[in-house]
Amino acid sequence: MIQSTMQHGALTLSSLVEYSRRSFPEARIRTWTGEGFRDQSFAEIGDQGAQIANALTKLGVERGDRVATFMWNNNEHQALYAGVPSMGAVLHTLNLRLSPEQAVFIINHADDKVIFVDATVAPMLGKYLEGTPKVQHVVVVNGPADAITAPEGITVHQYDELIAGESASFDWSTIDENDPAVMCYTSGTTGDPKGVVYSHRSIYLHSMIITTTMGMRLSSQDTMLAIVPMFHVMSWGLPYAAMMAGATLIMPDRFLQPEPLLAMMEAGRPTLAAAVPTIWQGVSALLDAKPQDITHLREVVVGGAAVPPAMIKKFDGYGVRIIHAWGMTETSPLGTVARPPMGVEDEEKEFAYRVTQGRFPSLVAARIIGDDGQELPWDGDASGELEVSGPWITGAYFEPEGNVVDDSKFDDGWLRTGDVATITPDGFMTIVDRAKDMIKTGGEWISSVELENIIASNPAVVEATVIGVPDKKWDERPFVLAVVRSEDDTDVESHKKFLEDLVPRWQIPERWSFVTEVPKTSVGKFDKKRVRQHYADGDYTVLGDPEA
Amino acid sequence: MIQSTMQHGALTLSSLVEYSRRSFPEARIRTWTGEGFRDQSFAEIGDQGAQIANALTKLGVERGDRVATFMWNNNEHQALYAGVPSMGAVLHTLNLRLSPEQAVFIINHADDKVIFVDATVAPMLGKYLEGTPKVQHVVVVNGPADAITAPEGITVHQYDELIAGESASFDWSTIDENDPAVMCYTSGTTGDPKGVVYSHRSIYLHSMIITTTMGMRLSSQDTMLAIVPMFHVMSWGLPYAAMMAGATLIMPDRFLQPEPLLAMMEAGRPTLAAAVPTIWQGVSALLDAKPQDITHLREVVVGGAAVPPAMIKKFDGYGVRIIHAWGMTETSPLGTVARPPMGVEDEEKEFAYRVTQGRFPSLVAARIIGDDGQELPWDGDASGELEVSGPWITGAYFEPEGNVVDDSKFDDGWLRTGDVATITPDGFMTIVDRAKDMIKTGGEWISSVELENIIASNPAVVEATVIGVPDKKWDERPFVLAVVRSEDDTDVESHKKFLEDLVPRWQIPERWSFVTEVPKTSVGKFDKKRVRQHYADGDYTVLGDPEA
Repeated sequence: MIQSTMQHGALTLSSLVEYSRRSFPEARIRTWTGEGFRDQSFAEIGDQGAQIANALTKLGVERGDRVATFMWNNNEHQALYAGVPSMGAVLHTLNLRLSPEQAVFIINHADDKVIFVDATVAPMLGKYLEGTPKVQHVVVVNGPADAITAPEGITVHQYDELIAGESASFDWSTIDENDPAVMCYTSGTTGDPKGVVYSHRSIYLHSMIITTTMGMRLSSQDTMLAIVPMFHVMSWGLPYAAMMAGATLIMPDRFLQPEPLLAMMEAGRPTLAAAVPTIWQGVSALLDAKPQDITHLREVVVGGAAVPPAMIKKFDGYGVRIIHAWGMTETSPLGTVARPPMGVEDEEKEFAYRVTQGRFPSLVAARIIGDDGQELPWDGDASGELEVSGPWITGAYFEPEGNVVDDSKFDDGWLRTGDVATITPDGFMTIVDRAKDMIKTGGEWISSVELENIIASNPAVVEATVIGVPDKKWDERPFVLAVVRSEDDTDVESHKKFLEDLVPRWQIPERWSFVTEVPKTSVGKFDKKRVRQHYADGDYTVLGDPEA
Repeated sequence: MIQSTMQHGALTLSSLVEYSRRSFPEARIRTWTGEGFRDQSFAEIGDQGAQIANALTKLGVERGDRVATFMWNNNEHQALYAGVPSMGAVLHTLNLRLSPEQAVFIINHADDKVIFVDATVAPMLGKYLEGTPKVQHVVVVNGPADAITAPEGITVHQYDELIAGESASFDWSTIDENDPAVMCYTSGTTGDPKGVVYSHRSIYLHSMIITTTMGMRLSSQDTMLAIVPMFHVMSWGLPYAAMMAGATLIMPDRFLQPEPLLAMMEAGRPTLAAAVPTIWQGVSALLDAKPQDITHLREVVVGGAAVPPAMIKKFDGYGVRIIHAWGMTETSPLGTVARPPMGVEDEEKEFAYRVTQGRFPSLVAARIIGDDGQELPWDGDASGELEVSGPWITGAYFEPEGNVVDDSKFDDGWLRTGDVATITPDGFMTIVDRAKDMIKTGGEWISSVELENIIASNPAVVEATVIGVPDKKWDERPFVLAVVRSEDDTDVESHKKFLEDLVPRWQIPERWSFVTEVPKTSVGKFDKKRVRQHYADGDYTVLGDPEA
């Protein structure tokens, strides 16, 4: 057989870093200081990345060694994203919002050799280090070395001092595209957190998809406000996609409250932004209290949890288009993006597309599987567990002795997402629930996600989650945990009345509880595990309980 | 060392075809019939592709066998793009504008087993087949089998009859991403045409880049008028990129004259279009005579030959933005795209970016090499031979006995483009000439391309090419072969006067000849080889020759 004449052209992050260093002198990484931005070009980030690589080599870091970060979104984190995988080591981003038990478990499980830590969170890390005897070096960034007290055996360095005087060039020519590059752990709503190891190839292809019209359309004409943390699924791939597209990134550092976020929008006039729904909920509340023009935003990508349709309408009102997207740690994360098809001019029909999770981009294959293990049709009606496959989707979970493919998580090479979904004939996917969050009442299924969205469309409701709770008559019934706008909005009957025309009568929940905040996971999703626990422990004041 | 947990997710055209079949029921391939469109969905194209694969299997086509096409841009050609590589065979697109000698050479060199031919060009192919004894089957498309008379030993089929009754499914699961997929020959301005074999991987990555913001931004909201022929460098990758993005393609079939092109624009209202400069020259002339609103075009991508700055301005006047791009058969072809960087608001500065060939997208590495073999700086001034490398750039030329890497074409793994270029510090590349088209006069270099552009900026000039010709005093001097607007525009002195303020005095050509058309290659570039030959043969009436 004849052979292709094409060059191989390995898909490596080192080549991406070199590309960005040379191609886009005008693009910037801009970190918010509380008052303004400190800017660096990709050339400076690349220089810093090489200095990091040289310094880590001196500390004894070798190919495949894990180098962790415990950091906010900022210039130095971007330089670590550039330098660590490019030298052949594995960047392990630790989630700042983990419980101490989870953090210690993950540092040990990943076998982190070096940890870079922002000074503001160094005391938190300091506590974990008592339980992580294999860590050898800690490097304090954006602050003095004495921001942390480390146990004996761990050498503490100051970042600027560590890289000062190191050469800004490093020979990163020998990486294979299938080598490990970055490692993340799932937030672990059930059981221990699970590790996923992205390869150079997977990240490269994922970055390309972010810059395509199927993805986030990030371009050299864009400034992206990257609110989604770099410690969570690579900030949805933005640090690498920006290097590829030559886009400017605004990094919020630790300033993730609505007020500084709106201040940095005013100062930096981003054209794009990306964050989970809860962030936008807060921004929206402040915008209503203190209006500000945010129409410099062409699109706002929202994912990580389902976007309530009411939020999309709300932002339409600000003149800003929310693009709904879906993904998970296991999918790098871009899995779907909701852009209506060409020629849909009717606003209501268009909206119906926008509230779905969206279409799968090229290279993400998808199917839905029924209870009997059979594939279900894409008819917009049949719902089953969503399974996906492709080059930026994990095919195993990380274990130090060798990666593990567990049948409860994988099905013949496909990732079982745990999401229950429908897919329309034109490929738009809607998550109707987490597999374990469907509520079975009197033999009929209720989608807790759909019910949450409808409850939240009541202007009196700020946010609401729904879980199934035991019921003597119906086996299980929905229970609503809601945050309302004011104390006047705690009348259960008026909430039930609101639902009357919107859901079948048998789906209207009897049990309600009003709180000041719904518990959330480290990545901002409703933490139903904790809600269930609190409910079982009798922690909530339940109104309307027919069994009380 | 730890391993990545990612799935491999092979980059194959078969997976792309299956993806497009399922994901975009609204997208269409629309072939112009002279009066309207005949439409097919990607699902129908996919079905047809599978039928072709089944039919070819019965004809004995095996993996790696070459299946050629001698066809216009139309639905059936798209189905062949889908089906042939997906079954593991190699699609070989034959250029309709080759000379008979070149066509016979190429068919034999590629060892084509089957040729699909459009009925309208079947008589032309019929003549070549006397010299191609290894061809076994010819399939006539869009017409009756008797459109061609084939020599003995070749079985002639009719396309619809061949695929009728074949199953619309085919098992294409076993392709490796590095397998050969599509084959093209260069137009061969010097020596024999050279073959390039694209792989599934190279085409997949190239399609991704077409849909990125660095490429053509082709999306599911777009209709692309694909004027650039499918028989030349895969129509710049559009057939595959459209499958990926879910974009609609308008295929002009054989109707490539300005009048039908404007008719199909009016009927199909494309948002994007792609063609070489000479096509737009014709469209522009007709538009001036008979105005038509073409502002439905968001962008027009022009490449294949340098775009005269005057043309960009002309189209700005129509309210349509020309995007200048550069590439070659050896680069799949996308090599650069000229989009000004963010923040350039001054119109004149922006224009200076738009007339360059543009920036290299991610995965295309570039360097310029001086006469001494040393790399030159990106300072916008130093010019040297442009060399490129990357996964959709050829690393060899096809030879039946094994691909060949010739030092005159490759430099340590990099492709020598033969173009002489400068690159600015912000990465914008400008081709100043073909290496062999620089003119050396009295020890100084003249860029024939720059001179051509300036001469063509004279409103009296329709098109002009410049070659170096022997001169007793200066060794070599520029000679201009031009097409002018009217007979009144043939005064050499007025042309020289026009140049006075625009080029150094010593660069102003003495020798001019006015003709009705400048000779062009099969792909629409000025054919300087033929111009040189004609000049040497004394075929031109040369005005102003100081030696005459």
